[in-house]
Amino acid sequence: MPHTQLHALFSLFLLLAAAKIGEEVFIRLRQPGLVGQILAGFIIGPSLLHWLQPSGTLDFMAEIGVIFLLFETGLETQPEELLEQGTLSLAVAVLGVLTPLGLGWWFARSVGENPITARFVGTLLTATSIGITAKVLADFGATRSRFGRVILGAAVLDDILGLLALSILASFAAPHLKLTNIAFTIGFVTVFFILVLVLRRAAWPRLSPRLGRLRAGSPVWAFSLVLLLGFSAMSAYIGLAAIIGAFLAGIFLSETESAGQPLRQRAEAVSSFVVPFFLADIGLRVNLHDLISRHALFLIAALTLIAMFSKLAACGLAALPLGRRDALRVGLGMIPRGEVGIVVADQSLRIAAIPREYYSISIAMAVLTSIFGPILLRLALKQDAQPARESSAARA
Amino acid sequence: MPHTQLHALFSLFLLLAAAKIGEEVFIRLRQPGLVGQILAGFIIGPSLLHWLQPSGTLDFMAEIGVIFLLFETGLETQPEELLEQGTLSLAVAVLGVLTPLGLGWWFARSVGENPITARFVGTLLTATSIGITAKVLADFGATRSRFGRVILGAAVLDDILGLLALSILASFAAPHLKLTNIAFTIGFVTVFFILVLVLRRAAWPRLSPRLGRLRAGSPVWAFSLVLLLGFSAMSAYIGLAAIIGAFLAGIFLSETESAGQPLRQRAEAVSSFVVPFFLADIGLRVNLHDLISRHALFLIAALTLIAMFSKLAACGLAALPLGRRDALRVGLGMIPRGEVGIVVADQSLRIAAIPREYYSISIAMAVLTSIFGPILLRLALKQDAQPARESSAARA
Repeated sequence: MPHTQLHALFSLFLLLAAAKIGEEVFIRLRQPGLVGQILAGFIIGPSLLHWLQPSGTLDFMAEIGVIFLLFETGLETQPEELLEQGTLSLAVAVLGVLTPLGLGWWFARSVGENPITARFVGTLLTATSIGITAKVLADFGATRSRFGRVILGAAVLDDILGLLALSILASFAAPHLKLTNIAFTIGFVTVFFILVLVLRRAAWPRLSPRLGRLRAGSPVWAFSLVLLLGFSAMSAYIGLAAIIGAFLAGIFLSETESAGQPLRQRAEAVSSFVVPFFLADIGLRVNLHDLISRHALFLIAALTLIAMFSKLAACGLAALPLGRRDALRVGLGMIPRGEVGIVVADQSLRIAAIPREYYSISIAMAVLTSIFGPILLRLALKQDAQPARESSAARA
Repeated sequence: MPHTQLHALFSLFLLLAAAKIGEEVFIRLRQPGLVGQILAGFIIGPSLLHWLQPSGTLDFMAEIGVIFLLFETGLETQPEELLEQGTLSLAVAVLGVLTPLGLGWWFARSVGENPITARFVGTLLTATSIGITAKVLADFGATRSRFGRVILGAAVLDDILGLLALSILASFAAPHLKLTNIAFTIGFVTVFFILVLVLRRAAWPRLSPRLGRLRAGSPVWAFSLVLLLGFSAMSAYIGLAAIIGAFLAGIFLSETESAGQPLRQRAEAVSSFVVPFFLADIGLRVNLHDLISRHALFLIAALTLIAMFSKLAACGLAALPLGRRDALRVGLGMIPRGEVGIVVADQSLRIAAIPREYYSISIAMAVLTSIFGPILLRLALKQDAQPARESSAARA
């Protein structure tokens, strides 16, 4: 057996096992499993235990992992649901994206960073993690409450806005800002998005039953996989992040069933295999030395506070029509940065000229908001357990 | 977006799409889908259309693919079922392995190949494809007939014997034959195998419900994935083929359920994504120039005839206690070489000193037996459709 194959298999085994253990430990501590997987990579990586080094194999699996993570996020997005609390969600999302974007940019400039890094810092702070907040809302049975739907709608919208900001950032790989590039990027994303929404309603309902008549094993799932890779490659080809294609493929297929089961179940089987590599690989690549300098600790603290305050204030303000109590909950619910923030940091490190230490600092910020956000939201929800009753009444 | 990422995504998309189309076309032609996937890679590869070249990315996905292919094969293997027609299956398997092994070795030596190549040619001819024959039997409703069970039992056993032969072959990477190496390899495989069978009965039934109590998403599936990578890495570490570990992980988990569904369903969702890369990558790496020389055509024809005749004669002879008609069916049912034969060719190319052209020739042989075997078996089963009635009676 060649040595490289043994090494690759062993590192895959080690990273997956660590990630799964980290996830379980964090869920038992009532913390986001996603954070546990990142920390697991950090612990066994070169920063602490030195059991594993970043490698091309792991980076490739991480790449596949993030594509499936965004695919799954897309599968869970029902564009129609966004319209239920449409105006309010849109207001929360837009204010909640612009405020951290502006504050992050202003802060980075004021500590002396160059304009490219400042744009990156702003982008990093934009997107709320749907997954983490959805989990807390579900724990309190508040997913179908009015403020819960506003939060989820806004979180989906700011994912899209965050990915758009990332694409714009990617078009800055060239050091001088070209307005035509930005216009092209926004145009591409908009056209791509509208095309997906239209085809999903117009063509897919007629195509889907025909696929079911194919004779190869699980044809709908096979088609979905081809579509996922095709959208991702196309997205990369026209200069967007590949994950935008993956996300749109998920939205396109979000109501599809395969052999009587929602597609989500099959996607989940693959995600459970590949997504841990994305998360744990992030921890693996965080450099402890980048985190423990005085300057780094200052940046982490400042960015975490800005991240929390900007969403709380902007989203809370936008949600005031719901009343002060629910507005506070919306603001708190929008705090956790997760998937998309981490993806932004990850892709920015690969494409743009940002200082290396910002990668580790960004991950630390995302991890901290993902821990503090749910704690604060839980406190606000516990004050009185009314939302839980409210929602079970709504369900009944 | 970096150029390499775009290139990797695009080649993944192209190979997966081609494989799925090839599978569908072949199934419609009533041919094995596996062959269609190999041919799809061959057609779009450097031999014909030049759309795609072999690459490190595709080889890595192929590696993951073959691990899941053997994992799935293991999941479908119930060791207990082998005992149902135990003695007869064992006789068919052993005679059916030794005869092609010997004939292949003798033939290669007599056309002037060196001893290492001769051993490789022999090993290549040993293992029947479970998947292909099982499909034909299922089409005729003959899976539960007596000769059907003999075939399936023998096919499983000769997979194990074939993998064992491959491990022995791998221990020949050093040019001089060491008997202690062979003894170690046989010892390792035997101990590993027995350990898996014992733990599966003794420890797993107690461990499995505890896993179900873990709180992370789909814990049983998560554990299975970690076990699969762990067994594969361990297997490579002690000098066996990694796929033996994957196969044993499958056997270990073959009766496991995850969230009320057989584990097989989740494994199938992943296999459907990764296995096509293994199969199509094989076609991609077949070199047309290695196939069209006069010498190569002679070798392909000779090896295909030896492969068919040796299984037909040896297995048919061993199955004579079933009567002449069923013995003929057993012999025909054992003809198709598929997964394991291809795996042997694949791994031998990577580890051992075999001439490059033998890789392409071996794949051609496996493909031809997989096409001719089922055609002949179908003819024999059609002669009278009795097995179908027999088995539906047995089912009712």
